[in-house]
Amino acid sequence: MKDLEALLTDLRRFVAERDWAQFHDPKNLAMLLASEAGELVAEYHWVRGDDADAHSRAPEPRARISDELADVGIALLLLCDRIGLDLPQAIAEKQAKNAIRYPVDAARGRPDRPA
Amino acid sequence: MKDLEALLTDLRRFVAERDWAQFHDPKNLAMLLASEAGELVAEYHWVRGDDADAHSRAPEPRARISDELADVGIALLLLCDRIGLDLPQAIAEKQAKNAIRYPVDAARGRPDRPA
Amino acid sequence: MKDLEALLTDLRRFVAERDWAQFHDPKNLAMLLASEAGELVAEYHWVRGDDADAHSRAPEPRARISDELADVGIALLLLCDRIGLDLPQAIAEKQAKNAIRYPVDAARGRPDRPA
Amino acid sequence: MKDLEALLTDLRRFVAERDWAQFHDPKNLAMLLASEAGELVAEYHWVRGDDADAHSRAPEPRARISDELADVGIALLLLCDRIGLDLPQAIAEKQAKNAIRYPVDAARGRPDRPA
Repeated sequence: MKDLEALLTDLRRFVAERDWAQFHDPKNLAMLLASEAGELVAEYHWVRGDDADAHSRAPEPRARISDELADVGIALLLLCDRIGLDLPQAIAEKQAKNAIRYPVDAARGRPDRPA
Repeated sequence: MKDLEALLTDLRRFVAERDWAQFHDPKNLAMLLASEAGELVAEYHWVRGDDADAHSRAPEPRARISDELADVGIALLLLCDRIGLDLPQAIAEKQAKNAIRYPVDAARGRPDRPA
Repeated sequence: MKDLEALLTDLRRFVAERDWAQFHDPKNLAMLLASEAGELVAEYHWVRGDDADAHSRAPEPRARISDELADVGIALLLLCDRIGLDLPQAIAEKQAKNAIRYPVDAARGRPDRPA
Repeated sequence: MKDLEALLTDLRRFVAERDWAQFHDPKNLAMLLASEAGELVAEYHWVRGDDADAHSRAPEPRARISDELADVGIALLLLCDRIGLDLPQAIAEKQAKNAIRYPVDAARGRPDRPA
């Protein structure tokens, strides 16, 4: 896998060349992320859950899904970079909280937070 | 930065320990991602654009924003992993398309796609 | 059914009493709507499609779903009111477009736009 | 304003003619609503908050915004109808809760819930 730093370097250059930092305040990037997430959801809304794995691997939808996931990832990386957040560290910290919030025994086979 | 492979290893173990793969079909994970994106947006909806950078760095909102960005990142990684997609590669491919879609000269200072 | 005008009258008073119009520019209300839509999606992400109707009528989730749908409706009405848009008319106009975009014969049993 | 019942009658016929009820379980309609909300957000993400009112009334963006708001409204009405929920009543009930959650004096000029 290409590492995140290399991706960030590419994204920063892309934005700088187009003078787009002026549009990329964190509020606007959060909106970008939400709109890209909406496009991703649209790839699945008529697909049955039982068919969603196969749908994700069929060539034609997969190309679109790959693009939508990339768009979400780009928005996420741009926002983290804008506010100086180390995303992998944030994920590790959140997972540490999740491990407490969803104890293995109480959460096994139950996706919702135990009451 | 912790690399993505290490994060994925942790996420896979977290899910396996709780037997949650049964809930994580791609459709459901796309929904998870959209709901987490919605929570992120909620951190900014009453913040003025001009204040959004400072808001993102003030300690109290930053802790929440960090968690929301992590939640989006977790959902994104889980979905990519579920469907066998290399996210950094997908981003690199999408950025190659974006470079054509938004030529530097036409797109400079204009965030929307040139007509 | 209570009519939309009566709802709008109540919503306008609620906002005016709290001096919230200053926060309710259309951009912010679009974000509010998206965050409420995210909360609605969260009510269904672990529910199987085949169980979603029953889930929506079971008392405990229904109370939450009712609140989430109301929140989406409130955000939608506030935004339409802010920009002076007659929502029922906008829906009627969009449905006229949809009737052309999805002809009955081509669209029967096929939820996606015919190619 | 056209009333909601008349809109629902039209929407029900549109869906029945296309045999789309099979796709319209509440989970899928929640996803539709979220994807339409994402498209609405995309109409505003590069617009400054101070310009968002004027943007919403300029002819060209307004036509798109009207369509996006209609799409959100259609998804919302379809979902409420599917689960037998009276949306205006749900809104009235939620507003009663909001009046308690956001007391006039504590909430004046403060859009977030008082701590």
